[in-house]
Amino acid sequence: MKKEHLPPNAKRVFTGVIFDVYQWDQKMYDGSTKPFEVVARRDTVVVIPVIGNKILIQHEQQPQREETVIAPPGGRRDEDEEPLAAAKRELLEETGYTADTWELWRTEYPHNKIIYTIYTFIARDCHAVQKQQLDGGEKITPKLITFDEFLMLSDNPAFGEKHLIPTLLRARLDAEQREELYKIIFGEKK
Amino acid sequence: MKKEHLPPNAKRVFTGVIFDVYQWDQKMYDGSTKPFEVVARRDTVVVIPVIGNKILIQHEQQPQREETVIAPPGGRRDEDEEPLAAAKRELLEETGYTADTWELWRTEYPHNKIIYTIYTFIARDCHAVQKQQLDGGEKITPKLITFDEFLMLSDNPAFGEKHLIPTLLRARLDAEQREELYKIIFGEKK
Repeated sequence: MKKEHLPPNAKRVFTGVIFDVYQWDQKMYDGSTKPFEVVARRDTVVVIPVIGNKILIQHEQQPQREETVIAPPGGRRDEDEEPLAAAKRELLEETGYTADTWELWRTEYPHNKIIYTIYTFIARDCHAVQKQQLDGGEKITPKLITFDEFLMLSDNPAFGEKHLIPTLLRARLDAEQREELYKIIFGEKK
Repeated sequence: MKKEHLPPNAKRVFTGVIFDVYQWDQKMYDGSTKPFEVVARRDTVVVIPVIGNKILIQHEQQPQREETVIAPPGGRRDEDEEPLAAAKRELLEETGYTADTWELWRTEYPHNKIIYTIYTFIARDCHAVQKQQLDGGEKITPKLITFDEFLMLSDNPAFGEKHLIPTLLRARLDAEQREELYKIIFGEKK
């Protein structure tokens, strides 16, 4: 859900590291009142980096998780940080790359009862300017994959960006949507 | 994520209406320690009710939301309530139906950093035994739809069970997966 959907009488009752909790009394259809509750989570940015005709994807390990996750670069947006600034920072830290062309592809509010936004950017014409600068909680191996391999990540249980799966499946289902996605990512006709 | 993935040193630091918050100190790869945080949300059950060769779906309105949501019956599992008992209760309350045959179709943990389980049941051979018993926060209109209409809900922005969308798209993409899904829902070959 969007932050704008929080009613004016909602009160923040808990402030955490990445989650806050809001509560309010909700008037029901029958005139009664019920306690309602949502959480707000720090927003995240996702970057689809394009290098030539390939997409950069990462095999990631995190300390509290057993399995390797396959996902594009990205991470948490700092408070008061613009989404694009966060995307540039995460791409640089995780890959050492900067990009000449940035486009905000989509802004999503993926969960009910959770105030949370995922900003997905396309970063075209990426080039290396420094080494990876990972924090102590990241182990990341970059891989360059083709557009077809990117679409097939929708069948890979290790793919971590679940919010992209319907788009990848639709591109496999429909030639027009496939071409449209190709243009969105590479900025040109196949 | 699953509750089992919560580390033993995690402490519940907030208890809410539907969300609890847990925190712990996570040892990182470089030996340093960082505060980690997840929330736990009450589990939900989803019921796919089958009546003849149709699927029952609901058009739902809720007081804090403007748009109508299209979704199968379902709702929150009470604490200490078995998932199947919650599914039977929600089907009866929302539709007035009971079912002769119940199958747990899938158990999902859809979000990172959120301990939350969605149990999806198939309820076959449904028949009406009472009227809807809605609470003051529900307005629900039932609709009977075909299997094909059910698959096409994957393209409908009003469809509320986002976790089912990849399965519906895969059934549209692949004849075998389509037949498999048909069997799962109707318990027979088309």
